[in-house]
Amino acid sequence: MIYFDNSATTKTSDLVLQTVVSDLSSDSLFANPGALHKLGDSCLKAYEQYATRTANCLGCRDDEIIFTSCGTESAITAINGYVNRNFRRGKTIITTETEHKATLEVLKQLETKGFRIKYVKVDLSGKPIIDELEKAMDGDTILMCFTHVNNETGAILPIKDIVALRNSYNKKIAIYLDCVQSVGKLDINLTTLGVEMASFSGHKIHAVKGVGVLYIKTGIIVEPFILGGGQQGGMRSGTESLFLANAFATALEETISHKVESASNVSEINEYLRKELLARKALIVSPEDASPYVLNVSFDGFESETMLHCLEKYEIYVSTISACSARTKRISYVLLAMGLDRKIASNSVRLSFSRYNTMDEAKEFISKVDEIYSLYSLKR
Amino acid sequence: MIYFDNSATTKTSDLVLQTVVSDLSSDSLFANPGALHKLGDSCLKAYEQYATRTANCLGCRDDEIIFTSCGTESAITAINGYVNRNFRRGKTIITTETEHKATLEVLKQLETKGFRIKYVKVDLSGKPIIDELEKAMDGDTILMCFTHVNNETGAILPIKDIVALRNSYNKKIAIYLDCVQSVGKLDINLTTLGVEMASFSGHKIHAVKGVGVLYIKTGIIVEPFILGGGQQGGMRSGTESLFLANAFATALEETISHKVESASNVSEINEYLRKELLARKALIVSPEDASPYVLNVSFDGFESETMLHCLEKYEIYVSTISACSARTKRISYVLLAMGLDRKIASNSVRLSFSRYNTMDEAKEFISKVDEIYSLYSLKR
Repeated sequence: MIYFDNSATTKTSDLVLQTVVSDLSSDSLFANPGALHKLGDSCLKAYEQYATRTANCLGCRDDEIIFTSCGTESAITAINGYVNRNFRRGKTIITTETEHKATLEVLKQLETKGFRIKYVKVDLSGKPIIDELEKAMDGDTILMCFTHVNNETGAILPIKDIVALRNSYNKKIAIYLDCVQSVGKLDINLTTLGVEMASFSGHKIHAVKGVGVLYIKTGIIVEPFILGGGQQGGMRSGTESLFLANAFATALEETISHKVESASNVSEINEYLRKELLARKALIVSPEDASPYVLNVSFDGFESETMLHCLEKYEIYVSTISACSARTKRISYVLLAMGLDRKIASNSVRLSFSRYNTMDEAKEFISKVDEIYSLYSLKR
Repeated sequence: MIYFDNSATTKTSDLVLQTVVSDLSSDSLFANPGALHKLGDSCLKAYEQYATRTANCLGCRDDEIIFTSCGTESAITAINGYVNRNFRRGKTIITTETEHKATLEVLKQLETKGFRIKYVKVDLSGKPIIDELEKAMDGDTILMCFTHVNNETGAILPIKDIVALRNSYNKKIAIYLDCVQSVGKLDINLTTLGVEMASFSGHKIHAVKGVGVLYIKTGIIVEPFILGGGQQGGMRSGTESLFLANAFATALEETISHKVESASNVSEINEYLRKELLARKALIVSPEDASPYVLNVSFDGFESETMLHCLEKYEIYVSTISACSARTKRISYVLLAMGLDRKIASNSVRLSFSRYNTMDEAKEFISKVDEIYSLYSLKR
């Protein structure tokens, strides 16, 4: 099996699995961190440690880390919670059409509640056009929502430029950054990055599905949605899940510890595939300066799904578009927003890598593409 | 160690742990259920199976089951989502002051948004006074929020009477029922029960922390909060977590399969403790007809926390009040709302049992209580 669908989700690492087993079999770490007895105390302390470890990896304070159930919950809580609490400052939100569905859907909902959403165009490399962004900001703007690394193309956001632009225009405009695909791959120091809120997902970094993180900068006020026992400083009620938080912290540390070797490995795979696929007249959709972890490629004469199903016969797994949209919408709205030709977009396939992928897999992939091409020409 | 704090949380069962390990090590079940390839397909089918198994246990349709991250998320989504979508029918919500913090907090928030909350009084047995409930219902009432089994006292709600009353008054008033403490202990058939929404939590039935269920009856329209990829019929976006859903379904089936023997075991423990504690002049706060899984008892001359800390020296773990409120509020609002004397309430301790507790533990508990009493009298 060759799994090139790591932007959709990753497999739990062995280390994380060991952590999960050890946590769930523990005779002391199963208690409720809200309980007043000493079992509860140890659980609360352990939980705080997971936040500290996460904060250390992300360059922020531990009380700026909120564990959530997924990247989507983090995104929705950040965006909804920020504007619900700060709407008196303005009702305009700036974003692009290439954001994740979570962002786009909550913004669509906010539009029905009286907010104005401005979509800044992106260029062919997937970056928001800075001139347009500058024009879009006005006195009514309270929030900007962007993605650090696009999950379909790997396009990297020029976040430094955007923060600088915002700072020179009006520091009170908050920035929410979706870091789901960038964490552990790009250097992230939340304190120096200059964004006010950021979202993270465990299952994209070999933790498990069911845990995410929301970063909220000190001083930024966000209305919580999941109210109740007041856990996590009141920002996210519900009994704290130690094993999930530990899975996240462990996976994050592990991913960061492999960052350099993994980047070099994945870059080699990416470059090899770009070269070989170009030689086969495929069109490389991912920009030159994209994250090496994502390679979006359009196969002339093959609709995305055809190629996906041809490849899966060889147990090679890729995706057409974001898994979060795949079952409902068949052509990538991200690629269309980048200005790509509809035909190219409808033939695009996303390969996405992890530190577990190898050059041998890349070579095998190319040889199977050749087989598919030749089978296909025979049939025609 | 004697763990009598099972209403706060339970330990993951061996069977659930095995399931978790098997799911997280699987080479096929880790994919994204939204992916179009066959790995994605098998994951989606497996996920649907977990919903079906859960639905079979709860007597409802599988498309009425939504997996969430916890009981609190289920509660907040049900209450907020229902009134946000149906507010044109009315703005009055009926509840009691003995609900879980999740319910009370979201209702408090809704009050600031123009909803009217009517708190029906409960009697000394913790049951809402039916006459008062009848008087409270009016043409503006859209929702009633109750708890099937109170987590602090074990008081069982006369849900049949309440449903009958609602049905005779106005079938369009929805009922939300918190089933977190009743599931697997009382018989629950959601179809015949007659409530429109219900919440469940995995970690109270030996699953894991980080998974819950929300039941929404077919035809009832609730606004989802966590928007995005449209997973779970659009009701709860975010990549589906197979292992968490499987942990829930497995724990639920296991709990139900042990229901009869467990009830008999726990009842024996409960009766023994009631008798022995009464003989020691403790006051039994839990009503006679409460769930045997909870025994709330007030020790004369011992503040709740004193008794808790005395017991933990013997590695016996109990709680004062709901773990979700313990760290912020020191006297149980539930007991005060039942009309209990402040002194009795401030001396109350909750013992809560699971199928893993034994009569030997109960006897050991009583002998330690005797030791504590005698140590205490010596000091005086």
